[in-house]
Amino acid sequence: MELQKYLQEKATLVEQSLQELLPAEGFYPPIIHQAMRYSIFAGGKRLRPILCLAAAEAVGKASEPLLPVACALEMLHTYSLIHDDLPAMDDDDYRRGKLTNHKVYGEGMAVLAGDALLTYAFEVLARYSKQNRNQGTALQVLEEIAVAVGTEGMIGGQVVDLESEGKNITKQEEALSYIHTHKTGALFRTSLRAGALLAEAGEEELAGLTLYAEKFGLAFQITDDLLDVIGKQEILGKPIGSDAYKKKITYPAIYGLEKSQCLAKEAIEEAVQALEKLPGNTEPLRLLVRYLEQREF
Amino acid sequence: MELQKYLQEKATLVEQSLQELLPAEGFYPPIIHQAMRYSIFAGGKRLRPILCLAAAEAVGKASEPLLPVACALEMLHTYSLIHDDLPAMDDDDYRRGKLTNHKVYGEGMAVLAGDALLTYAFEVLARYSKQNRNQGTALQVLEEIAVAVGTEGMIGGQVVDLESEGKNITKQEEALSYIHTHKTGALFRTSLRAGALLAEAGEEELAGLTLYAEKFGLAFQITDDLLDVIGKQEILGKPIGSDAYKKKITYPAIYGLEKSQCLAKEAIEEAVQALEKLPGNTEPLRLLVRYLEQREF
Repeated sequence: MELQKYLQEKATLVEQSLQELLPAEGFYPPIIHQAMRYSIFAGGKRLRPILCLAAAEAVGKASEPLLPVACALEMLHTYSLIHDDLPAMDDDDYRRGKLTNHKVYGEGMAVLAGDALLTYAFEVLARYSKQNRNQGTALQVLEEIAVAVGTEGMIGGQVVDLESEGKNITKQEEALSYIHTHKTGALFRTSLRAGALLAEAGEEELAGLTLYAEKFGLAFQITDDLLDVIGKQEILGKPIGSDAYKKKITYPAIYGLEKSQCLAKEAIEEAVQALEKLPGNTEPLRLLVRYLEQREF
Repeated sequence: MELQKYLQEKATLVEQSLQELLPAEGFYPPIIHQAMRYSIFAGGKRLRPILCLAAAEAVGKASEPLLPVACALEMLHTYSLIHDDLPAMDDDDYRRGKLTNHKVYGEGMAVLAGDALLTYAFEVLARYSKQNRNQGTALQVLEEIAVAVGTEGMIGGQVVDLESEGKNITKQEEALSYIHTHKTGALFRTSLRAGALLAEAGEEELAGLTLYAEKFGLAFQITDDLLDVIGKQEILGKPIGSDAYKKKITYPAIYGLEKSQCLAKEAIEEAVQALEKLPGNTEPLRLLVRYLEQREF
């Protein structure tokens, strides 16, 4: 199997679904729908939706029926980026090589565009659940996703990140681990678990995919931090070294380059092992996590 | 029946439920839970939750089982206030006589506190739906609420408000009507409809409560605008005349004082009439909308 082809195929499906799901640009009031679409279609790799779909396939089920859920996960990811980029937070002008939402639409509209994507994700999830023949499982997924992006998850991570930026904090390792397992890890975790749960995974299968998700998230974050130190600006879409400039706590800053690379490798191996007992097609997930070693996304 | 006693009883129930539902202040990371609680417990009158509970009673059902839904509506209302008060939006320093969220916790944390309340509302609604014996209806309510606070509802109203502020816009009456039916009206409407639907209202009962909600929302908005012109600062909790100062389009600005008062009275009468065929206790809703004529909330 060729990973790039798989990623492209799934990304195209997600892209089409997002086009259909999101209100058209002309829908009144047009400015908010333009702002939502600007960030949703700003060149994301659709990693979280793809992980959700691949999890269902790893359990041996068809993934296409899960597209609305996969798209909701992308909306939640995009909302978090729009708000994180705001002047009051990370104050970033560029994201994936394009101007950030507030640089194009203004701060007020960017806050609202984030709010709208967050809200719309739950509308999509509610509609999906209503139409699902297994409403109980769909509702469990809806609740898990809400927890994953709330103060026990993504928002909690952003809060600690915001609080620690530029400060000399003690217990750096603890803070680093908390920020990453929450700010980015929780959404990866819930993306894979949503796919598994909706594919009616058994207990052991769900545990395997959850472990994979946690190790994937860790490897993703370490390699993301490494990319900021040793990557190319064209790939990153933002200036190299911006983490260091902002005094963010990162893996290379705390553990050094070599140790960070070791930790990433270790996490990748553990992720691959976690896939062992799954009955479906696990190749995409295996290739995907291995790809992080040479990551360019 | 004494309205004040009814309002106080219900507000106390809502208050207790909110205390139980929201994560404690000490829950990690504490700052975000403090910020959420600061605005939730900043002296709101709990009007939307009370309307939700009263709607169930107007259908002849017990209202207490609906408390989680009522509280979710209050969380959504509070999130919208926190974000509306931000410098990039209405830029208000005070709300109900207290400093606004961003004045106490900073802009970044205020954005996140709003995000967190919005997210948590859906978590509460998902959990309520999961435990409800009629999951289908609960999911319909969840979806309706998401639509009501999205770009077709509350956010749409805020977008048009933000876009029109300080500008000389043509079609002022249309803009005014759009802003109010969406920015405040949609949440009132869904609060009453949620109560009705969860109380298993019949079609006619649902239609009656929906009409009541729309007229209530209109009367509320006109009297709110009037209060800004002729009210007392102690009641409003913010400086009198701030709408005019910001060149907001309001009912008195467009229709004049006298015509605005007439429009409010008309809406109140229509709201009262809409309650006629309901089988349960409609007195609280009747007194509540009549109270708007002499409103101080």
